[in-house]
Amino acid sequence: MRLSQFHLHTSKETPAEAEIVSHKLMLKAGMIRKLAAGLYTWSPLGLRVLRKVERAVREEMNAAGAIEVLMPSVQPKELWEETGRWEKFGGQLLKMQDRKEAWYCYGPTHEEVITDFARNELASYKQLPVNFFQIQTKFRDEIRPRFGVMRAREFLMKDAYSFHLTDEDLGREYKNMYDTYGRIFTRLGLKFRAVFADTGAIGGSASHEFHVLADSGEDAIAFSSGSDYAANVELAEAVSPGPRAAAAEAMHKVDTPTQKTCEDVAALMGIALQRTVKSVALMGEDAEGNPQFVLALVRGDHVVNEIKLSKLAGLGEYRLATEEEIDQHLGSEPGFLGPVAPKKAIRIVADRSVAAMADFVVGANEKGFHLAGVNWGRDLPEPHEVADIRNAVEGDPSPDGHGTLGIARGIEVGHVFALGRKYSEAMKLTVLDNNGKAAAPAMGCYGIGVSRIVAAAIEQNHDENGIAWPEAMAPWQAVVCMINPKNDAAVSEAAQALYRELNAAGIETALDDRGLRPGAMFADIELIGIPHRVVVSERGLAAGTFEYRHRLASEAENLDRAAVLSRLAGKA
Amino acid sequence: MRLSQFHLHTSKETPAEAEIVSHKLMLKAGMIRKLAAGLYTWSPLGLRVLRKVERAVREEMNAAGAIEVLMPSVQPKELWEETGRWEKFGGQLLKMQDRKEAWYCYGPTHEEVITDFARNELASYKQLPVNFFQIQTKFRDEIRPRFGVMRAREFLMKDAYSFHLTDEDLGREYKNMYDTYGRIFTRLGLKFRAVFADTGAIGGSASHEFHVLADSGEDAIAFSSGSDYAANVELAEAVSPGPRAAAAEAMHKVDTPTQKTCEDVAALMGIALQRTVKSVALMGEDAEGNPQFVLALVRGDHVVNEIKLSKLAGLGEYRLATEEEIDQHLGSEPGFLGPVAPKKAIRIVADRSVAAMADFVVGANEKGFHLAGVNWGRDLPEPHEVADIRNAVEGDPSPDGHGTLGIARGIEVGHVFALGRKYSEAMKLTVLDNNGKAAAPAMGCYGIGVSRIVAAAIEQNHDENGIAWPEAMAPWQAVVCMINPKNDAAVSEAAQALYRELNAAGIETALDDRGLRPGAMFADIELIGIPHRVVVSERGLAAGTFEYRHRLASEAENLDRAAVLSRLAGKA
Repeated sequence: MRLSQFHLHTSKETPAEAEIVSHKLMLKAGMIRKLAAGLYTWSPLGLRVLRKVERAVREEMNAAGAIEVLMPSVQPKELWEETGRWEKFGGQLLKMQDRKEAWYCYGPTHEEVITDFARNELASYKQLPVNFFQIQTKFRDEIRPRFGVMRAREFLMKDAYSFHLTDEDLGREYKNMYDTYGRIFTRLGLKFRAVFADTGAIGGSASHEFHVLADSGEDAIAFSSGSDYAANVELAEAVSPGPRAAAAEAMHKVDTPTQKTCEDVAALMGIALQRTVKSVALMGEDAEGNPQFVLALVRGDHVVNEIKLSKLAGLGEYRLATEEEIDQHLGSEPGFLGPVAPKKAIRIVADRSVAAMADFVVGANEKGFHLAGVNWGRDLPEPHEVADIRNAVEGDPSPDGHGTLGIARGIEVGHVFALGRKYSEAMKLTVLDNNGKAAAPAMGCYGIGVSRIVAAAIEQNHDENGIAWPEAMAPWQAVVCMINPKNDAAVSEAAQALYRELNAAGIETALDDRGLRPGAMFADIELIGIPHRVVVSERGLAAGTFEYRHRLASEAENLDRAAVLSRLAGKA
Repeated sequence: MRLSQFHLHTSKETPAEAEIVSHKLMLKAGMIRKLAAGLYTWSPLGLRVLRKVERAVREEMNAAGAIEVLMPSVQPKELWEETGRWEKFGGQLLKMQDRKEAWYCYGPTHEEVITDFARNELASYKQLPVNFFQIQTKFRDEIRPRFGVMRAREFLMKDAYSFHLTDEDLGREYKNMYDTYGRIFTRLGLKFRAVFADTGAIGGSASHEFHVLADSGEDAIAFSSGSDYAANVELAEAVSPGPRAAAAEAMHKVDTPTQKTCEDVAALMGIALQRTVKSVALMGEDAEGNPQFVLALVRGDHVVNEIKLSKLAGLGEYRLATEEEIDQHLGSEPGFLGPVAPKKAIRIVADRSVAAMADFVVGANEKGFHLAGVNWGRDLPEPHEVADIRNAVEGDPSPDGHGTLGIARGIEVGHVFALGRKYSEAMKLTVLDNNGKAAAPAMGCYGIGVSRIVAAAIEQNHDENGIAWPEAMAPWQAVVCMINPKNDAAVSEAAQALYRELNAAGIETALDDRGLRPGAMFADIELIGIPHRVVVSERGLAAGTFEYRHRLASEAENLDRAAVLSRLAGKA
């Protein structure tokens, strides 16, 4: 592609409405233009990248044995009523009425439509297993669309739906899709993690999210240094840091007149925050359903995990205790609470890390005082109830026993679900099994945010000059820049010859023949993130060299034609 | 592709809801499944064909210098109000409100969006000309969606929009797109015609429709045997059949007591219908705007063309004359009208063919009588007003002077428009011209109904056994059918080897390894329209041959391996 014939339209200004780097860079590079809130037109440049992602996804899905279909984006209300989702899906569902006043929605997902399709298509177990996928436009009416195509309302998605006679076979395909997703993101050149996900709301039996790692990611992910283990920080199991040390101090009262937080107490005492214990007073229910006061203990540097707490017996719908309830059970006011000598017998839940502490600091249940040198089994009974009730943190042992946890931020770009029979049963999809009996197939569903990947890749791959595409996602692998202020025929011909030669060698190459000054030309090329830049100039030609630079290299090199070709060989 | 791994799902039954052959065959072949009125899911088989069309369109558009973009399908009301089309577009526009109660529509076309995009993207004449295209899902809320994907509500369209500083440059790109469309339909293997179209309603300066020819087509097209001339029958110019012969008969009255139509009179008299003249009594307006009685004359075998009539002075909003008005001007009742000796002086408009007639038959303006042997200039004055007021018919001289007209039926699958400045002016799109002055660019728009082409191709290419795809649109060029009731390893291996060999030679080949009986297998293969079928059987292997048959051949041939390969060579 000659850039003089391509509608490249970059901008120097940083757009005010863009909050995150990918949105800023996509606007500056002219990859997208906003039509309305959450609605973007993909420019020629942006679409080139989007199509690369689409092609990689399609080819890997085909290679994995999935079969492509194309379902309508407009879906009738009746189908959504069969699963109860017409109401339950909520405000994200964009609803509309046709000229006959029949209701439809713009599909945010296609479980209903594919299950209806399957009702017509699938009659026998002999047609199973089958995995249908499509790459298609979806709409979700976000409350606050923002971040450009990262959270657009209209977006491009790959969604796949598989059908199986047995749960075991669903498990096999789940693994197949899990592996396929890994191949897709690896092929795209992205650093990613498959993250174990909570499936509560969807009711499936297994679920993993695929996250592209980027500092700006919305989700914190705990991952192991020694294995594939990764989970959302809120879901990652936080294990005990190791055995409890022996008591070394005597328990003693510390004067903490205004110090109500662990941080303040540690600072006053000049000790590490890890030696303090945070006491959180809650109200749950006992076995008879009566209100029950609970003191939850986590280490001062840890954060209580509400999801984990709510899974404990009696804490399903817990709330924070009131000051009155606290005084009633502990005889103190908030800021000085602790598990030692409560006013009444109370339920104490100690995090695993707290159970492993010795010589720790807790509130004294007396205004203005904390206790230091506290030890289990000596100053208070051994904890009856030890549980994982905190967020995992960097440095924790990995729950699978291999390595320690690091914390990274990620952007969710894919999701695999073992759905089970939720949709097949709700919509009465059955096939005849090998005994001639009607059976509801088990289903899996597998999504990839195709347009979102483009933004996520930028979040992961950029610097102060712009985007730095992974090879596989770049609009072109290479660009030949022609510096030719005098309109020298030799420079023109050499640039065009190299451009043709690189393309003929299978390296997708653009020719920057727009006639810009070198500074402006190079700034554009860096902004739009072409991995390999080769400059053809009069001076270079005189020396028999081209100036080559990788997008992320700090220096350019002067290479002759053969060296340029060999440097780019293998990038095709 | 092994068909045992592909979700092929044909049906023997002819679906009751399908009215036209393409709809029937697409349902029987399992290419599409209905989701709701005018909404279809494309099955794996259907999508393979749709993608072939899409790829051909995309590649030819790219080769023609157009640049691909992707615009949202959901469009804000505000843009449509700028052009007045929010109201004017009518019931086909599917409107919806988002969660903030802002109005949007599902785009039926993208003139507004691309013009808005251009307002942001185009600032200088140096960026022109440019032609943006997309291949994207559209929605038109048809009153009566039917004929499957031929007139679906949601459909796939290629739409392109070009921008130009001058009308001349628009004309150049119009020609470029016209030629590109010809290449697309030729490449797809379709018989088609580019048809000159009426542009009245859209207000453009030039417009052609591209029709795939098929007996079931909705539109009648007049086309020349000696040139590229083609036009909708209603718009084709009907020229005079030649010079008038000399008068040979005397005018005489004929007794036609109950014969009120030309057909009845010709039958009674035993003469050709072409020798009669039909007199149609109309009321138009004279130059002062007063009602004016007009007698329009066309040959008995011709049909009056209302569009052509309405373009004549004073006939813009004509109506048929009442019996009272007829009696007042001609002194007769309908069925016996004629131009000879009217009661009052009247305006007579003679079709060109009528002006060239001699010895013709007309009504006598007297109940129960016609006049025969009538001649211009002798029995009535030479016609003052001769005009083209009839539909062209088969055998007419082509209006461009080359050959004669044939009439064919066509299905509109493409349309090119020179829009002019309608949208750029309405939406205040300007660029700076080479004098630094703001100028509204001239625009062209160019559409192709990608999904409709699939149905149109079937209308043109089928027989009683099913679809007979043109090579370029077939889901696979060839299929290797394995007849192997005994599970003979040699048959299996030979079939797989041939299948691999054909694919390696670039011939897209399927392997029918589903294990069906030959009759059922062949019926499926004929129904889905694979051009080349090669059968591998035990008997054939024993003789060292494969059975080859082209989809449209009446007989199969036994060919050895080399002959099969050479027969299919060049089909890649």
